[in-house]
Amino acid sequence: MSLLVIGTLAYDTIETVHEKRPDVLGGSAMFFSVAAGAFLPVQLVAVVGRDFKPGDLAMLQRHGVDTSGVEHADGRTFRWTGRYSADWNSRQTIETQLNVFEHFDPKIPPAMCAAKYLFLANASPVVQAKALDQVTHPAFTVLDTMNLWIEMTRPELLQLLRRVDAVVLNDEEARMLTGERNLMKAAGAVLGLGPRYVILKKGEHGAFLMGSDVHFSLPAYPVSQVVDPTGAGDTFAGGFMGYVASQGNIAPKTMRKAMLYGTVAASYCVEDFGVGALQGRTLRDFDGRYDELLGIVTP
Amino acid sequence: MSLLVIGTLAYDTIETVHEKRPDVLGGSAMFFSVAAGAFLPVQLVAVVGRDFKPGDLAMLQRHGVDTSGVEHADGRTFRWTGRYSADWNSRQTIETQLNVFEHFDPKIPPAMCAAKYLFLANASPVVQAKALDQVTHPAFTVLDTMNLWIEMTRPELLQLLRRVDAVVLNDEEARMLTGERNLMKAAGAVLGLGPRYVILKKGEHGAFLMGSDVHFSLPAYPVSQVVDPTGAGDTFAGGFMGYVASQGNIAPKTMRKAMLYGTVAASYCVEDFGVGALQGRTLRDFDGRYDELLGIVTP
Repeated sequence: MSLLVIGTLAYDTIETVHEKRPDVLGGSAMFFSVAAGAFLPVQLVAVVGRDFKPGDLAMLQRHGVDTSGVEHADGRTFRWTGRYSADWNSRQTIETQLNVFEHFDPKIPPAMCAAKYLFLANASPVVQAKALDQVTHPAFTVLDTMNLWIEMTRPELLQLLRRVDAVVLNDEEARMLTGERNLMKAAGAVLGLGPRYVILKKGEHGAFLMGSDVHFSLPAYPVSQVVDPTGAGDTFAGGFMGYVASQGNIAPKTMRKAMLYGTVAASYCVEDFGVGALQGRTLRDFDGRYDELLGIVTP
Repeated sequence: MSLLVIGTLAYDTIETVHEKRPDVLGGSAMFFSVAAGAFLPVQLVAVVGRDFKPGDLAMLQRHGVDTSGVEHADGRTFRWTGRYSADWNSRQTIETQLNVFEHFDPKIPPAMCAAKYLFLANASPVVQAKALDQVTHPAFTVLDTMNLWIEMTRPELLQLLRRVDAVVLNDEEARMLTGERNLMKAAGAVLGLGPRYVILKKGEHGAFLMGSDVHFSLPAYPVSQVVDPTGAGDTFAGGFMGYVASQGNIAPKTMRKAMLYGTVAASYCVEDFGVGALQGRTLRDFDGRYDELLGIVTP
């Protein structure tokens, strides 16, 4: 099955209480692609500036990512600077430079328009809608978003929610979108906005999946040392969608297993800056940690 | 199998953002007994004052609790007043009146000294040790404690930890006891203090069990409306120990199922003040919610 992702490629500056690290390879589609690429070939549509290192595209290709849909625009690549609190429970955006992403008008190569599995990674809902318009018959479309878009472009986001099959949100985003503090109620309210499924991520406290035919809740994989949580949500989505697309169905049983793979992928993500700990991971690595997680969560 | 609990019976005053409720029936051994009583007869050792209502003891008896070990002392029953924050994530002790509990010297009736399953509910480690001294050959002893005792009586608590099989702690207590912020590391450090097993409770985020032959992590049952979280931890322990004692073994498979029963019991507890929503629950009720939880957490 074919899996297409549209999102950002970026260079981030990450500040933790231990270290400040500039020019860390990141972006929603970067984390997603490296994780999903362990399961099946991934088609990527994104934009980068002239400063984007050829070696970073080559790394994606080594992970099974078709980068022919990556546009090279004049200007600099998207950049984000964030600072984490000591307990990782909050993060502050210090600076966002949209750069070439500001005028990004996604053009999906003809060969990719027939993708069956589509992930609209975190980006403006206007950009996400333009991408969705070009995919002819997606079988399963999943949307990610963030607080910025919920605040700034709520009408566009609500319109888009009626066109997708599933949405992934973290606890804060679900509360902001619905006004419900209780996460179960928030998830129910999200389903009322259109999607058939909602995946609600709670960071170190795990995640749950809810839809009319499935309700599955899962604790996080116990990571002993978090280095940088940036991209954990995108990586979760990559593991989830990678597994689902590789199986070619969205049966509840498949999606439950996919939640475990998403959790495994995210657990690698947080163990190093950027995609440092994800790079080079094979499906064999994922399977090893999957079995370990299965042992921890099976009653 | 026989299950014995030593702990407090109390009248609490509970302040939530919605309501202030005086004289709510509570205490660590109260919550524990009502939950465990659904699984097997429970033997209770505690102390109450002259103000303790006979109807409240009769209620315990209706739940299968042998109250012949409850001492009636001159004075008033233990009282605690607490206030919860709007999101339930923190609570403040407004007042603690030890009353008859201040000079409690537990005397376990001879018929109860042969108990095989023993729960030392939250109380001073000095009182807990005196109780433990009187039980001749317990097969499985579990200890609960709280921040107060970790701060005030650490040497006595550390000594007691070397004499029990398992300890139940919430996240804050585990961090306070070990100095480790990461809960996996904290759990590992607790095991280094003596117990073979540690159950770490994370409130709305679930709980995990760790020991040399078992590592099991479980999300909480999704409660849509929390009314009063007081006693949820004691109730969890009651469901856990009730099931384990009813099975008469501590095989990993038994303890995993017991974690689900503890979660189910705690989910009822928080739905009303005190033991309001636990009262009258039968094993049949517990089994119904157990099956629902099993469906939610099974991969």
